[in-house]
Amino acid sequence: IETKLPKVGTTIFSVMSQLALEHKAVNLGQGFPDFEPPQGLRDALSRAMNEGRNQYAPMHGTAALREQIVLKVGQLYGRQLNVDTDITVTSGATEAIFAAIAAVVRAGEEVIVFDPAYDCYEPAIELQGARAVHVPLTVPAFAVDWQRVRGAVTPKTRMILINSPHNPSGAVLSSADLEELAAIVRDTGIVVLSDEVYEHIVYDGAQHESVLRHPELAERSIVVSSFGKTYHCTGWKVGYAVAPAALSAEFRKVHQYLTFCTFHPAQVAFGEFMASNPEHCLDLPAFYQAKRDRFRRLLQPSRFKLLDVPGGYFQLVDYSAIRDEDDLAFSKWLVQHGGVAAIPLTPFYENAPGTRLLRLCFAKSDATMDAAAERLCRL
Amino acid sequence: IETKLPKVGTTIFSVMSQLALEHKAVNLGQGFPDFEPPQGLRDALSRAMNEGRNQYAPMHGTAALREQIVLKVGQLYGRQLNVDTDITVTSGATEAIFAAIAAVVRAGEEVIVFDPAYDCYEPAIELQGARAVHVPLTVPAFAVDWQRVRGAVTPKTRMILINSPHNPSGAVLSSADLEELAAIVRDTGIVVLSDEVYEHIVYDGAQHESVLRHPELAERSIVVSSFGKTYHCTGWKVGYAVAPAALSAEFRKVHQYLTFCTFHPAQVAFGEFMASNPEHCLDLPAFYQAKRDRFRRLLQPSRFKLLDVPGGYFQLVDYSAIRDEDDLAFSKWLVQHGGVAAIPLTPFYENAPGTRLLRLCFAKSDATMDAAAERLCRL
Ligand SMILES: CSCCC(=O)C(=O)O
Ligand SMILES: CSCCC(=O)C(=O)O
Repeated sequence: IETKLPKVGTTIFSVMSQLALEHKAVNLGQGFPDFEPPQGLRDALSRAMNEGRNQYAPMHGTAALREQIVLKVGQLYGRQLNVDTDITVTSGATEAIFAAIAAVVRAGEEVIVFDPAYDCYEPAIELQGARAVHVPLTVPAFAVDWQRVRGAVTPKTRMILINSPHNPSGAVLSSADLEELAAIVRDTGIVVLSDEVYEHIVYDGAQHESVLRHPELAERSIVVSSFGKTYHCTGWKVGYAVAPAALSAEFRKVHQYLTFCTFHPAQVAFGEFMASNPEHCLDLPAFYQAKRDRFRRLLQPSRFKLLDVPGGYFQLVDYSAIRDEDDLAFSKWLVQHGGVAAIPLTPFYENAPGTRLLRLCFAKSDATMDAAAERLCRL
Repeated sequence: IETKLPKVGTTIFSVMSQLALEHKAVNLGQGFPDFEPPQGLRDALSRAMNEGRNQYAPMHGTAALREQIVLKVGQLYGRQLNVDTDITVTSGATEAIFAAIAAVVRAGEEVIVFDPAYDCYEPAIELQGARAVHVPLTVPAFAVDWQRVRGAVTPKTRMILINSPHNPSGAVLSSADLEELAAIVRDTGIVVLSDEVYEHIVYDGAQHESVLRHPELAERSIVVSSFGKTYHCTGWKVGYAVAPAALSAEFRKVHQYLTFCTFHPAQVAFGEFMASNPEHCLDLPAFYQAKRDRFRRLLQPSRFKLLDVPGGYFQLVDYSAIRDEDDLAFSKWLVQHGGVAAIPLTPFYENAPGTRLLRLCFAKSDATMDAAAERLCRL
């Protein structure tokens, strides 16, 4: 059988997690915490199972969980969502992103994505028979050059895909960025897909500039978030998409036949836990900022150069003082000989600029960070 | 935004579950048990959560669960699977079906499906820019007329989608059916997608004729099954796909970007539970046969005519002695005035033959069956 996705291999995340196991390396690659979701959340899930919540959930998610999302979005971003029409709970943010693209983008159309970008966008676009148009972010700030975005718009442009805080760089969009975006899409049929899975992880007192804060953009956007990133349970695979009613209706037509609904007991658990622990999201910036700052202090004596981290839970490091080779080669060398698994940036790029950068995940316990830093400082 | 799926509305399953709630009807519509998954399975899931299995599972599923699937398929169907290459755990059978179609079928191609068929096939086909070619099953046996299937094959045919035990009818394919199918696809590039979610629910001593029993077919097939149907937890949304290595590789390219992986603690739980309770699957035919027979006895005094049920957990009934109207109208009337929610057959059809049949789910406790039967016998 001839492949429909010639560019796709095994994701770098699986490859590196596998190599980490084989070489007993400290795994700072794939983006997941090595600590646990709150005990209260796990207990709520067990309770839901033992209280008979084991059959199909409503296709668009449980009412109680959607209500909590309405509350959160209202409080944090000042947007009043309709609980029935605007929210769909999905089997992870990955499903939400796929469903959004499949619902909106047609064969022959174009989707503007940044270069670098998270790796699941392009295959979803290609499966629609559409084309991803890559607009390079500036080096090394990973900022958006809106003139270039504007220049990339054609009559075929159906969607612009943004991601803030950005994976892999941690860069965040400002309200000025959103204004630029709004000006570009105004009076067009372009839909914005906003991947905000790290929405609660922004640092140094900054606020997350959700598209949902921007009424004009929100009217034409699908915003995706992740419970896995926020509640330390990436393996639970629960996320959601927010969009105005008409867009949500199209999104749901696809979601309905992609997975139909999402693991029911977890939805019950998130609904209960959010209701009784609304501070969890609000405490997350400080929680991760302490980790970020600790990790940076530990790496201070190393020969890696640390880039700024405005958001997300990844530290980019420049390794050019250590070895002069490309990032794929260096990350292989590092996992084999340095005992640390990291993610090279090249797989995120259409046109990699040849930077000497690696991505390290600091969503880790102190012990893991200490072990990794000790190894990294030896190089 | 213009819809990509003009034919799709809310599924009849959601519509009827909603109407059942509104009218306080006994819900024999959407196919789910009203009893619980085994306590040991739920306990295993809680344990997995409390033992740190909360981050991403391997993309293709946990090794322990894949090993159990290898064992089961070997024992029941005599096929030796490769644990690394042949199995992918998915977020329900729905995801597996979508991923299979998206991985194999291209724009402009055709997929042969039966008429009637489960409702998730056609939207997945249409989203590829491909066309579903509907071959009518015989009335009222719901048997396959292989001459018609052969006549529907064109150079564009990319896939034939079979489903045994069949939803909505409960009809099962025989080994002679599989021989006919093998003869049709021999020397073509046609891939078989076999939806076998009710594989463990066949009656009267018959054996399930899995495509996996048929080496020639198995070499070109993707076989889909469901833990939700087998372990009474449709809301857990765990299923899997089996295919030879090359087909699995294509399947995984899509799965990787559709959901990436599936709720990790449930995979751990199914792996453990299957290992310590291998009899669960083997006991399922008797378990459901008792329910089927009980339900049929209860409906004996009614004016419904009961069709045969060779497999699955649905009873088709002919209501023509009660009211002379189409099945959509009758099912609405029944939920409002008869106090029972059932599923009409028309939504499963491209060309509904105007039969007077409803589908009733008997995966229910005695009390639910009693309540439903009492209402149904009053009509
Ligand atoms: C789905 S595996 C990748 C997890 C992740 O978000 C990342 O590492 O960037
Ligand atoms: C995904 S809801 C439908 C459940 C089912 O398998 C059926 O009722 O046929």
